[in-house]
Amino acid sequence: MDASGPTFFERIRAGQPAAVARAISMVADRRDGYLELLAELYRYPVEGVVIGVTGPPGAGKSTLVDALIAQYRASGRRVGVIAVDPSSPFTGGAILGDRIRMQRHAADPDVFIRSLASRGQLGGLGPATAEAGRVLELAGFDVVILETVGVGQAEVEVMGVADIVLMVLVPGSGDHVQILKAGVMEIGDLFVVNKGDRDGADRLQAEVEMLLRLAWPQEEPARRMARTVATTGEGVADLAEKITGRLLAFERSGARVERRKRHVERQLRGHLQREVVERFHRYDRERHAVEGAVASLVSGQNDPVSAARTIVAEFTNWLKGTV
Amino acid sequence: MDASGPTFFERIRAGQPAAVARAISMVADRRDGYLELLAELYRYPVEGVVIGVTGPPGAGKSTLVDALIAQYRASGRRVGVIAVDPSSPFTGGAILGDRIRMQRHAADPDVFIRSLASRGQLGGLGPATAEAGRVLELAGFDVVILETVGVGQAEVEVMGVADIVLMVLVPGSGDHVQILKAGVMEIGDLFVVNKGDRDGADRLQAEVEMLLRLAWPQEEPARRMARTVATTGEGVADLAEKITGRLLAFERSGARVERRKRHVERQLRGHLQREVVERFHRYDRERHAVEGAVASLVSGQNDPVSAARTIVAEFTNWLKGTV
Repeated sequence: MDASGPTFFERIRAGQPAAVARAISMVADRRDGYLELLAELYRYPVEGVVIGVTGPPGAGKSTLVDALIAQYRASGRRVGVIAVDPSSPFTGGAILGDRIRMQRHAADPDVFIRSLASRGQLGGLGPATAEAGRVLELAGFDVVILETVGVGQAEVEVMGVADIVLMVLVPGSGDHVQILKAGVMEIGDLFVVNKGDRDGADRLQAEVEMLLRLAWPQEEPARRMARTVATTGEGVADLAEKITGRLLAFERSGARVERRKRHVERQLRGHLQREVVERFHRYDRERHAVEGAVASLVSGQNDPVSAARTIVAEFTNWLKGTV
Repeated sequence: MDASGPTFFERIRAGQPAAVARAISMVADRRDGYLELLAELYRYPVEGVVIGVTGPPGAGKSTLVDALIAQYRASGRRVGVIAVDPSSPFTGGAILGDRIRMQRHAADPDVFIRSLASRGQLGGLGPATAEAGRVLELAGFDVVILETVGVGQAEVEVMGVADIVLMVLVPGSGDHVQILKAGVMEIGDLFVVNKGDRDGADRLQAEVEMLLRLAWPQEEPARRMARTVATTGEGVADLAEKITGRLLAFERSGARVERRKRHVERQLRGHLQREVVERFHRYDRERHAVEGAVASLVSGQNDPVSAARTIVAEFTNWLKGTV
């Protein structure tokens, strides 16, 4: 590339795959320069739709995402996918296998699929996923799908970033009663009974319907649920239409703006914490405050609550000198 | 209680069940006064043993804990259990069912069992569990068992508190290959093949043995693994002996001190964060910094990285005035 060529940011904007992939890696791995990149990314308006897809292992989420990609491509939309691999090693293997199924779109330049492994990092998964999704939005993908497993803390965080969340359920897993009792109703905007040709699909659908009626008595449950057979594509066009319908409703009611506001606030708080932690690390490298306190704690001369108060008071004093 | 009666702390020390239960609730729910209680709790030396028990759902952890309680009671030890219910609603139901099995010890005053639900709180699960365990140690329980499911971030944190971690595995779950590949070797100090009478137990045992040989070529794998049938009690005495043997080895090699040091440091960092966050909340209530920044972010006039830097600089300035 000659000196007058496009900048890295311009290449992301143009959707150049190498630049997009590099930007996502920078953000996901918190590589040098990622903060500057983020500052640029968030200065541009975006108009993509971010769809979160979650649900228990084995619900067929990856296959459903694959079917949605095909559906959106058929209507000329460019689709980006960030698939978050779960942090639990107990399920790691199977998920990576699933992911491979989506690779039939690998040759399509208007589809971009990327897996992020969570590697157990603290607090990094949600923000990094949101930011990776932002890269895709900036790169001109009309639809960005974030796929994750389960509804642990990390998943709730990831889903908090989406404009709409699909909760994928599967008949006969025996899980659904628990799922629907345990606060999952608040996470999902659209409940998808996948593997809808299986035994038990009718029962699951009836249960979901009943719970939706309880939660939103004024509304037709059919607006908040769909039934699919992702492997054959059955019901996927209907699902896509319902997604658009819900998004339109969110737009009209102002719910979308509220949601983006919460997302932006969560993101800001993450960066606030990082900034403070960075300053504290600088302080601690200079004064070895934690090391000294640990010694006094191990020997039983101090307790962690009092030690923390002392250190924060001293840190505050130190900060005075830095501004 | 008259005015000259024992203090709350003295009643905890004396192991009075009502005081112990209240102390655990205070700590788990971060109720008013819990910081003062913690400061007191950590000023006293303790000599209990903290055993972490983890593993995939369905491995029979609760039944194994139940069998260990019986084993320790038979040798006159007082046993306290903190069982952490998983944050995922997908598995919630079954686990709560398991817990009930331990209730055969409910009538024994020298056994104390308490479940903590994680309720998806951010970062609170690990510290609260550690502190609840500390309450039990202070109350004179010789053995404190922390039981948790899976090896997500929260579980790793909980296990970081234990003097020794049992990783419970089960034949035929199909999970074990993934488990043993995915970094779980570093979490477990002792690998327990439970349901050891099932088909596949020999194979699982051989696999674990092989992996232990790879990880610690100088050591006899048998020292780091046990095989049990928790439902019948088979192998549990042997497991208890191995636990003691490992603890003795940790004591002699200095590993226990190192571990407690790491635990104390993690705990201190948690309190440091809390102290800083509390100060920030005070600042934000006064200045509405986050609210103002969110408005500028939603309208696209600012990016979260720059906004966070500005707020932290202003917060630092504000702190100057508070000390």
